[in-house]
Amino acid sequence: MEKPNLEQIRHSTAHILAQAVQNLFKNVKLGIGPTIDNGFYYDFDLQHQITEEDLKKIESEMKRIIKEKQEFKKHDITKAQAIKLFEKQPYKLQLIEELDEITYYENGNFKDLCKGQHVKNTSELGFFKLLKISGAYWKGDAKNKQLQRIYGTAWESKEKLKEHLHMLEEAKKRDHTKLGRELGIYITNPAIGKGLPLFSPKGATIKRTLQRWIEDEEIKRGYQFTDTPILAKTDLYEISGHLSHYKDSMFILKNDENEELALRPMTCPYQFMIYKSEQRSYKDLPIKYAETSLLFRKELSGELHGLIRIWQFTLADGHLICRPDQIEKEFKGVLDLIEYILKTLGLKDYWYRFSKWDPKNKDKYIDNPKAWEESQKIMKEILDNNNLEYIETEDDAAFYGPKLDIQMKNVWGKEDTMFTVQIDFALPERFDMTYINEKSEKARPMVIHRSSIGCYERTIAMLIEHYAGKFPVWLSPVQVSIITVADRHREYANDLANELKQHNIRAEVDSSAESIGKKVRNNVKMKIPYLITIGDKELGNPSLAIRTRENKVIETSKEEFINKIKKEIEEKC
Amino acid sequence: MEKPNLEQIRHSTAHILAQAVQNLFKNVKLGIGPTIDNGFYYDFDLQHQITEEDLKKIESEMKRIIKEKQEFKKHDITKAQAIKLFEKQPYKLQLIEELDEITYYENGNFKDLCKGQHVKNTSELGFFKLLKISGAYWKGDAKNKQLQRIYGTAWESKEKLKEHLHMLEEAKKRDHTKLGRELGIYITNPAIGKGLPLFSPKGATIKRTLQRWIEDEEIKRGYQFTDTPILAKTDLYEISGHLSHYKDSMFILKNDENEELALRPMTCPYQFMIYKSEQRSYKDLPIKYAETSLLFRKELSGELHGLIRIWQFTLADGHLICRPDQIEKEFKGVLDLIEYILKTLGLKDYWYRFSKWDPKNKDKYIDNPKAWEESQKIMKEILDNNNLEYIETEDDAAFYGPKLDIQMKNVWGKEDTMFTVQIDFALPERFDMTYINEKSEKARPMVIHRSSIGCYERTIAMLIEHYAGKFPVWLSPVQVSIITVADRHREYANDLANELKQHNIRAEVDSSAESIGKKVRNNVKMKIPYLITIGDKELGNPSLAIRTRENKVIETSKEEFINKIKKEIEEKC
Repeated sequence: MEKPNLEQIRHSTAHILAQAVQNLFKNVKLGIGPTIDNGFYYDFDLQHQITEEDLKKIESEMKRIIKEKQEFKKHDITKAQAIKLFEKQPYKLQLIEELDEITYYENGNFKDLCKGQHVKNTSELGFFKLLKISGAYWKGDAKNKQLQRIYGTAWESKEKLKEHLHMLEEAKKRDHTKLGRELGIYITNPAIGKGLPLFSPKGATIKRTLQRWIEDEEIKRGYQFTDTPILAKTDLYEISGHLSHYKDSMFILKNDENEELALRPMTCPYQFMIYKSEQRSYKDLPIKYAETSLLFRKELSGELHGLIRIWQFTLADGHLICRPDQIEKEFKGVLDLIEYILKTLGLKDYWYRFSKWDPKNKDKYIDNPKAWEESQKIMKEILDNNNLEYIETEDDAAFYGPKLDIQMKNVWGKEDTMFTVQIDFALPERFDMTYINEKSEKARPMVIHRSSIGCYERTIAMLIEHYAGKFPVWLSPVQVSIITVADRHREYANDLANELKQHNIRAEVDSSAESIGKKVRNNVKMKIPYLITIGDKELGNPSLAIRTRENKVIETSKEEFINKIKKEIEEKC
Repeated sequence: MEKPNLEQIRHSTAHILAQAVQNLFKNVKLGIGPTIDNGFYYDFDLQHQITEEDLKKIESEMKRIIKEKQEFKKHDITKAQAIKLFEKQPYKLQLIEELDEITYYENGNFKDLCKGQHVKNTSELGFFKLLKISGAYWKGDAKNKQLQRIYGTAWESKEKLKEHLHMLEEAKKRDHTKLGRELGIYITNPAIGKGLPLFSPKGATIKRTLQRWIEDEEIKRGYQFTDTPILAKTDLYEISGHLSHYKDSMFILKNDENEELALRPMTCPYQFMIYKSEQRSYKDLPIKYAETSLLFRKELSGELHGLIRIWQFTLADGHLICRPDQIEKEFKGVLDLIEYILKTLGLKDYWYRFSKWDPKNKDKYIDNPKAWEESQKIMKEILDNNNLEYIETEDDAAFYGPKLDIQMKNVWGKEDTMFTVQIDFALPERFDMTYINEKSEKARPMVIHRSSIGCYERTIAMLIEHYAGKFPVWLSPVQVSIITVADRHREYANDLANELKQHNIRAEVDSSAESIGKKVRNNVKMKIPYLITIGDKELGNPSLAIRTRENKVIETSKEEFINKIKKEIEEKC
């Protein structure tokens, strides 16, 4: 017998998940149950609120079904027959309406609408686990009812399942939503909202450190920073085209004078208005604007996640307004900056994705095929001229132009776009941006949209997971922790901390009443690079005994230690 | 004959302004016409849009009325008589409805509802000028019709008027709304909105320089910076009391799941939630949170002004969460910080205002008389213990507690609050903030709300006006301008600029094709501290000839010049 493939296994396991839920609960209305990376989910509409406890019961029922060795039988039927067969399943009826050819699968007491990709018999299944429950709107639309979604993973062998669950356990330890809270980097609060994380002082320190580094580096590279408001009349987005192509993702409100305002989804229109506030000449170009820019994206609550999918985020944004002959050089300059940033942050596993438009998707893109063709051609030429390896995708561009995305995977194996560089012909035209060329004529500039370090929130999440919280010294919110053995050591500890602070070293004193053992454990848990214990022995000692978070002890003079950390901060280690 | 006082003169001039407008235009409906600082205004509802040109015509008509030596006659009448008399004046009829005793004044062909304070005869008037036209909603409510408001100034003598107009001319030159644009500090854009200024690179440089200074200074003084979102569910403001006391000033919107969100008017609730994310002990206090915080205030478009009255602003905000025994020391610490900032910025003409609540104004304040009494008593004691001179006002407090305001006047003589310090008993209770005291019991902390450098936008406006754009070197967006005589000097100029930049000196090269004279004039106009011209003579010369914006020439070596500027930046000169 042919071995089933993973797609068939996951599809069929989703199928028996739905079967088990229907067996265990009353009045279950079925949504959809597709496969995803490493597994599957199924959406249910039922009165009972499914709990973690229930997942175990459902798993048992699934195992019972597997033991029964039920055969999967495929049936092709007409639309009329399907409507009759699924008359009690309103979501299935909606799907049937949209289908031309209808197939369903049957096993034991269960029938489900399905196009195919099934194993032959439930006995071929068994290496699965249900992972979590979440809410999801029917068809992803908040106007529809919220269903209960159960996620699971399924594999072809016990070993593969075990391996995957082990990976998940490891990822969980590094997961920024867990570690970020434990390390005091951020909190969320139900009265504020899930998509609106608050950076506590430690997280704010990391963000500020990254931000100043990026701002200084970009200024060195010729960028001019702007500082522009996050609100604007929607008139602005009428000009830019956001209202036609992006409105669903925008937060919109009204003022008392009934003017419509929007929280900005992007910075470009503001920097374009600053560009346009003076008549520019060919000698002024390129003008490279940057901003540490607060942006907003309206997402459904079910889509929100940690520091990654949030309503408000801070983008290291920038727009290079160039003459056509400057595009290639400036594009390369942007790539050089991004590569410098990735290297400095110690991030190596990234790849490039060249994201083009889809000419059929009229809603999503500005409809100017000539501009798209030209800008995609230029971008491809630059990438090829520079021997950059990249993958190509369609229908992932910005609404105004093609993108080069820098892609990474998080600890869960999920791919995410960290930084992007875009070439834009369309918006300079919509905003009627001009410069005076050598012949004293008005000419049209081109624009490179780019992020450098990307979204600070997302990058911090990536760094938490990459370093499992053991940030390089320069990024550590607390660089040195000084622990006192008894109250009489407090003054000495405070003096030492103040001396370190004068050298811009982030030092903290822990003189709490806890035992030394507990204080050391806490220090280890918080992954602070250097730990100094001050007891009687240390008071008169000219040298310091410093314990690293790797549990190495360094014995050194205070001056040497200060120079060592200062060098590490300076060199971003 | 008794000399009329200024109040009478201004009141009567407003009166004949209305008379003149009625004489000149058709169907004029009169609003109100009170006196204000240095003058008066009058609101009109008429179809014709009044222009600057019209102001001259109106002034002539007023002078004609003055020449006619019309006598002002006072009449007391009943409500019924008043309703008959002003039957064609709908706004006056609304006012009559609200009055108990009704008086009107009559002169020539004109009658106006008025309580008094008039000169005897129009001939006593004449030293006035109409200044500007603006829009204003009837009763200041955007739901009502927008009227046309004419502002004027009036004095007792020709000399006084001349003096005042001269002051206005001088103020105009320093006015940040004029100078701020000329110096390239900020722009506004009609598609974005009047209350949403955009800092151009030069303005963003000033803001960033101030911001980093304040952040570093506050960290030195033991503050911990947070970084929290500007959006929150309105649930948060239900807890804080903003919804009951401050909702009219808040921007409110909804997400797709029909949850109400608000743009934040204040930072306190966020920092309180971070405080509450752990159980704090008496040893942890005081906890001093700071944030460079984006805040929002919904104002009517007619109220918006430059960088001062805007929809979005950046506050150097902070909250000190203290045990009661720490309040006085921490309050003094805040005053010390503010005085250090004012001194460093070279601002000397400020005074303190102790702003208390008004127990009768139930809408505006949290209704907890005991907490108000206690917090006002504590604040008064601290002020008196520290021999601080202050004035007292009522009904100017925050909704949750009394304020110490640091007041200044702008170039127009208008008083404004630059910084505030508040003592708050009320919100710690509403947020149920606690700490564990020495007896292991839960206790209630107190909170000091404070700004240090205030709103960055407002402070920058104040600095533009105070320095008339000649910022101290450390704040100047461009510190050194290097001008080339010919193209062959460009390389040398660029090398010099790069060398200065390596020392973190903001240097720019002007190698445009303009004449030297024009480049120098532009430099003077932009008030750049140091100007270096590079011509043939300079190429081989080991020393630099530097022209200051005070037009002094310094001849010095490059190293000395670099050290001089670095010292000025370091010492904030």
